[in-house]
Amino acid sequence: MLNIDSQIIRPTLLLDKQKCLTNIDSMLAKAQRSSTRLRPHFKTHQSAKVGEWFRERGVEAICVSSLKMAEYFANNGWKDITVAIPVNVREIDLINELASLIQLNLLVESREAILFLQSELRHSINVFIKVDTGYQRCGIPAEATGSLRLLVNLMKESDKIHCKGFLMHAGHNYKAVDQEQIHKNHSKALLDLNELKDVFRKDIPGIEVSLGDTPACSISEEFYGIDEIRPGNFVFYDLMQYVLGTCDENQIAVVMACPVIARNIDRNELVIQGGGVHFSKEFLEADDEGTKLYGSIVRITENGWSEILGGGFLASLSQEHGIIRCSDELFDEFVIGDLVGIVPVHSCMTANLMRGFLTIDGEWIETMNSCQ
Amino acid sequence: MLNIDSQIIRPTLLLDKQKCLTNIDSMLAKAQRSSTRLRPHFKTHQSAKVGEWFRERGVEAICVSSLKMAEYFANNGWKDITVAIPVNVREIDLINELASLIQLNLLVESREAILFLQSELRHSINVFIKVDTGYQRCGIPAEATGSLRLLVNLMKESDKIHCKGFLMHAGHNYKAVDQEQIHKNHSKALLDLNELKDVFRKDIPGIEVSLGDTPACSISEEFYGIDEIRPGNFVFYDLMQYVLGTCDENQIAVVMACPVIARNIDRNELVIQGGGVHFSKEFLEADDEGTKLYGSIVRITENGWSEILGGGFLASLSQEHGIIRCSDELFDEFVIGDLVGIVPVHSCMTANLMRGFLTIDGEWIETMNSCQ
Repeated sequence: MLNIDSQIIRPTLLLDKQKCLTNIDSMLAKAQRSSTRLRPHFKTHQSAKVGEWFRERGVEAICVSSLKMAEYFANNGWKDITVAIPVNVREIDLINELASLIQLNLLVESREAILFLQSELRHSINVFIKVDTGYQRCGIPAEATGSLRLLVNLMKESDKIHCKGFLMHAGHNYKAVDQEQIHKNHSKALLDLNELKDVFRKDIPGIEVSLGDTPACSISEEFYGIDEIRPGNFVFYDLMQYVLGTCDENQIAVVMACPVIARNIDRNELVIQGGGVHFSKEFLEADDEGTKLYGSIVRITENGWSEILGGGFLASLSQEHGIIRCSDELFDEFVIGDLVGIVPVHSCMTANLMRGFLTIDGEWIETMNSCQ
Repeated sequence: MLNIDSQIIRPTLLLDKQKCLTNIDSMLAKAQRSSTRLRPHFKTHQSAKVGEWFRERGVEAICVSSLKMAEYFANNGWKDITVAIPVNVREIDLINELASLIQLNLLVESREAILFLQSELRHSINVFIKVDTGYQRCGIPAEATGSLRLLVNLMKESDKIHCKGFLMHAGHNYKAVDQEQIHKNHSKALLDLNELKDVFRKDIPGIEVSLGDTPACSISEEFYGIDEIRPGNFVFYDLMQYVLGTCDENQIAVVMACPVIARNIDRNELVIQGGGVHFSKEFLEADDEGTKLYGSIVRITENGWSEILGGGFLASLSQEHGIIRCSDELFDEFVIGDLVGIVPVHSCMTANLMRGFLTIDGEWIETMNSCQ
């Protein structure tokens, strides 16, 4: 029995720390080359320990996706945290608590949220206005300078709200059909943010603009005028990024190790313990007929895992079971009790469900959702 | 501010305990009418407290989807637990520990698993052979009596393995196009299991056959010859069951309450805090064009929630954000900071992610994944 192999009893998220550190170093080097700040999004790993690896490399400012996540990282020594989701006004007590302890940066996109903060804040915060450059999830369209100006002016009336600038997220890059489209979306975002910076330079002293998504931050070298980038997924990458062409296979730093619990020789299918409660149910379409692909297959080795194996893929998931559809050759390789490695479709979702990672050196890494 | 409303700060899974108890009572009454044992599947709620509600009604035997879940419920006083997934041989230490404490019932479908158990078991267990009556996930086809006999005979050689009979799960009922098809699948399952019981009656003294899935157990009254049923989802039900026609709207016992964090008047969209980390990303297809539906909308009221509101649905999810597409009327009903109720597509996945429920009477219900 191999070393990693002997440690794994049930579905386990393996982390190749070296690949992860290389991903961090590459993105930091790119930010330095582009004279922009890397404010990594920590929603992917949600782990104080992985956060340390960033801190050791000089990162001081981070981004999170919920106020509870901000609280967790504040408790782990982070002093400058952006919560990159429009503010949930119901969380005002925790907002005030965190604002008294750290530099808290929140997002708004409405008059109502600003008026609420203005009335309820007991400590100063920075506020970014969320702008939309094409994703159409939330934010004020970058072109709507009139609406933006109303919000900027409204914030001037408050002594607790310090308007910091504009923030956007190009989530539509995940739906891009090719890299060309990601570059196109990114160019529009650069143009929009630089224009806003120009228009509001006098209204917002020290104005900053922030963008960030792993696809664009991975493939572009152009960040002119951008004060900070906020990619998150790059720390692990995953199959979705690989298929988008925004990472190489050897940059993917996580793989699920799942035990084979049954084999069906008539259908050439391996059944693994590993289902929706481990992977989530995100899938890619493997062909034009809508065949769902929930993960690619690798062999677990002594030092980590192999390249992606042809001839098989994770074809369906129920709550605890996964079905791998195989070629004859791949099917014959695995017996009951063996581990199969699965490259997850979306590492953010998988890491959130797994709540902890085992490095291939045998170190257990906790996250904010680990119970002990 | 309403009572429930004032308690909710961030996305929260609301549980209507009365609806839940009615669901439990109905299924128990059906089992009694059909002279079969209800061995409820606890994977849906994963909660000791909800388990108590079953125990208070005389339930003594349960089903779970992982050995860790068996451990949790064994620690909460359950003495007869079936782990309804082919045995993961890597868990042999925990198998032996639990087998020394409770009546542990495991599933096998291969010679390899039986030989492994035979060699490694230190305490007696019951074993069911997993049979397949049409789902094609795992199990030996019910027609393959030769293969089944090999396994039955192999178990006779072991003093620790007590072959108990046959178990199946009609997961294909979730893909049924109408109730007729569920009835047809169910009839085949009844026929298959009764035939197996007949064929193996002499080989397996006290032979039992077990089936269970919420769709069939909800709409059928026919369980002739079936020793136990193992539905799970019925405890909460959800939108998927409602769309399948296997529950009424007023049987759905859980609803997510999510704060509105942004409103887009140009697109008539409400943005909620509530994403893939809360709901999972399971969806239903709302029409023939493949429009995705991640949940239906209700109004949170003083006593729980309203009927499903027309004119809107949860149309997309990212990690923490959800987008509700609305009619003019529905859009105008909600302002920033309001709660929107969402009927989840798949309550098992949502409950697993939320790790705890708030009853509409204000009681906090923990699960095996609650951290404290």
